[in-house]
Amino acid sequence: MIMADGKNIKRDLCLFDILKLGSDEREGIYTHGTIYSIRDIGGITFIILRKINGLIQCVYDKKGTDDEKEILRVENSIRVKGDLVENEKAPHGVEIRVQEIELISVPETELPIKVSDNSLSIALENEIAVRPIVLRNERRRSTFKIEEGLVRGFRKYLEGNDFTEIFSPKIVSSGAEGGSNIFKLEYFGKKAFLAQSPQFYKQTLIPVYERVFEIAPVFRAEKHNTMRHLNEYISVDFEMGFIKSFYDVINMETGMIKFALSYLKENYGPYLEILKAEIPEIDSIPCVRFKEAKELVSEKYDRPIRDPYDLEPEEERLIGRLFKEDYDSDFVFVTHYPSKKRPFYAMDDPQNPKYTLSFDLLFRGLEVTTGGQRIHSYKEQIEKMKAKGLDPDDFESYLMLHKYGAPPHGGLGLGLERFTMQLLGFTNIRQTSMFPRDTLRIAP
Amino acid sequence: MIMADGKNIKRDLCLFDILKLGSDEREGIYTHGTIYSIRDIGGITFIILRKINGLIQCVYDKKGTDDEKEILRVENSIRVKGDLVENEKAPHGVEIRVQEIELISVPETELPIKVSDNSLSIALENEIAVRPIVLRNERRRSTFKIEEGLVRGFRKYLEGNDFTEIFSPKIVSSGAEGGSNIFKLEYFGKKAFLAQSPQFYKQTLIPVYERVFEIAPVFRAEKHNTMRHLNEYISVDFEMGFIKSFYDVINMETGMIKFALSYLKENYGPYLEILKAEIPEIDSIPCVRFKEAKELVSEKYDRPIRDPYDLEPEEERLIGRLFKEDYDSDFVFVTHYPSKKRPFYAMDDPQNPKYTLSFDLLFRGLEVTTGGQRIHSYKEQIEKMKAKGLDPDDFESYLMLHKYGAPPHGGLGLGLERFTMQLLGFTNIRQTSMFPRDTLRIAP
Repeated sequence: MIMADGKNIKRDLCLFDILKLGSDEREGIYTHGTIYSIRDIGGITFIILRKINGLIQCVYDKKGTDDEKEILRVENSIRVKGDLVENEKAPHGVEIRVQEIELISVPETELPIKVSDNSLSIALENEIAVRPIVLRNERRRSTFKIEEGLVRGFRKYLEGNDFTEIFSPKIVSSGAEGGSNIFKLEYFGKKAFLAQSPQFYKQTLIPVYERVFEIAPVFRAEKHNTMRHLNEYISVDFEMGFIKSFYDVINMETGMIKFALSYLKENYGPYLEILKAEIPEIDSIPCVRFKEAKELVSEKYDRPIRDPYDLEPEEERLIGRLFKEDYDSDFVFVTHYPSKKRPFYAMDDPQNPKYTLSFDLLFRGLEVTTGGQRIHSYKEQIEKMKAKGLDPDDFESYLMLHKYGAPPHGGLGLGLERFTMQLLGFTNIRQTSMFPRDTLRIAP
Repeated sequence: MIMADGKNIKRDLCLFDILKLGSDEREGIYTHGTIYSIRDIGGITFIILRKINGLIQCVYDKKGTDDEKEILRVENSIRVKGDLVENEKAPHGVEIRVQEIELISVPETELPIKVSDNSLSIALENEIAVRPIVLRNERRRSTFKIEEGLVRGFRKYLEGNDFTEIFSPKIVSSGAEGGSNIFKLEYFGKKAFLAQSPQFYKQTLIPVYERVFEIAPVFRAEKHNTMRHLNEYISVDFEMGFIKSFYDVINMETGMIKFALSYLKENYGPYLEILKAEIPEIDSIPCVRFKEAKELVSEKYDRPIRDPYDLEPEEERLIGRLFKEDYDSDFVFVTHYPSKKRPFYAMDDPQNPKYTLSFDLLFRGLEVTTGGQRIHSYKEQIEKMKAKGLDPDDFESYLMLHKYGAPPHGGLGLGLERFTMQLLGFTNIRQTSMFPRDTLRIAP
């Protein structure tokens, strides 16, 4: 009988292993990968192999047989045996002088575009249709490694701060964010929706775990197709109890972002380099009141205030610019948003109930987070629901939280793709979502 | 201007901090929490406080004023000041002799059930309706901490083995698992579905990252309401390239489970103890062929074979029993399932195409994983689709993977709630899903 013990996993020498090989371990090594590109120079073939953590150059003194022509095609998967030698001009300063090549698998057809081109000249609209192959490009690969790195950084920080990871349902009976931008579902003859956020569940779990987080998809049926909206995205959500004010939430997020960016720099250097990403240095993040931010921008850039209750995208951009120019900060917290534009669970500012104890975080002029303190008193929550035209009976299980007691608490949601987009200096959020969902797209 | 630097987060002494206090740090400590239960014994009040990592006993020599009666109610959130002293009989062997209590928040109403009862006598059906409060029970809290611990263990292992974490879309244009058990969605006038698994995306990313994983919700519109089915659950999915056979996948899973269980024992001891969970010792896991497993059970337990193509739940249970009795193993891999019952992407066994190079993992007699090697040849995949009555045109973007080349690969999906249920010896999967979704339930 075959017994699996988890020990004899044949592990390929990955790129990082290869780069760590001692001078006496460099002869007759084996490795595998997929052919990214091939160049012939004076009878010598340079094969760039795509491996788990990056590219490696293999040099093959080919004899030009028909067999070899079959083996040496782009997107073939191969196994090579050879000696590792130094070569300044090769990626990572090393290359493999190939002795043997074994063919592992071949594509059916050649790629319709040259995926190994550094600057893929393909319009974004067209690219998305062929993302399954475009992702094989080294820059695209790096984009989503960086997204992974951010998630690992956020998670590590939250775990270190005693947050419990939760998995809340995505099929729900009512929306958390209100409004019409919610997807409807047929659910065994009942009316169901896709969760716009884990808000109700995060709050419900405050009396249970005190601090919780979730990194998972959320769904918004927004009808506008913009550069910064997706209909499905990854939300980094956390919620914390026993707060003294919403500045505790702001501080926690500041710590989380500082940690994640350091984590990226430490562990994702090669990918950041490929994308020439500028990681901002953060010591502290300025906090400015909504009203004040609007006035500052209006004054500095000579711009009339049109909507006193919300920030227009252009205003967000200008607030970002102002805080970059005047405070050298890529980030700014805009606090005390008007109650009118915030959801029913936002706590009003006791000093002026027209405003809430809430905030947005702008990163290089774009909102990447919304958060704040939540109402924890039952009576207060019921009143605010009614004032917003909502029926408390529709929120029975959510209101158990308030009814049976919860400490003061607050939290936030951070849009992963937006954050990555701003970090990498991209202009369209579809560049940081592998398989974006917008009003026109549900495939690939 | 307020500047957030992420440093001045006021951190409460959590339970683990308290237990680590040196003998000279035990006087006049502050901590906070929610009152779990209260007992009065001879004029002394014993308050059990629910904190982030567990319970702590506070002793209060109460004076019986009206104010104190207000403060000392179950589910009040409080802050206490006092001295930490040893007491063998208290949880964790310590208690706080309270000097001051500050009231932080109060519930609107008393709990309708005594949540602090160790053995909550409430039927599961009724419990689910009030889960938001039942989760405050220490056993319930521990259940989902253990689920978190498993996820952390799985993730740590996969990260350590160079797997890239992915976030695939949940709104999709076609189902991966076939059949009618798929949820339909209104999507801006188009027909869309909820993903039954990340299968297509995992495979698509094999030529990109070689090894990928995702831990995220999946959706199955199965109409039967059983003890082991949910309509939404968390799937631990991984996929790996350049495999020699599907035993590489089996070995990876064995390593992953061994690691996660050790990780649990090391880091989640107090929660395991509360639930009296028996963590199985694993050295290696036996692998048995589907056909052979059926015959062994039929012979040993004198049971006719009714369905030669699938395992009945009772057969799974008996296979589990047999391998426990004869091999002292809680786990068994059942391999080479019939092609007829496996999805179109499963690779047939070249030695007998009636069977596939696939497997299930049974844990204490219940299937917790399905996996196997996938077809990577374009022609082979097209042929098998047609043989299964599917139209390849419906899978255009999925087939790019095969068309433009992929190394041999395989992977699996593990049901998190099922795994936790078996680990904790529960009988209904609704015990390991915080807010379960079944044919009757979309709330809370």
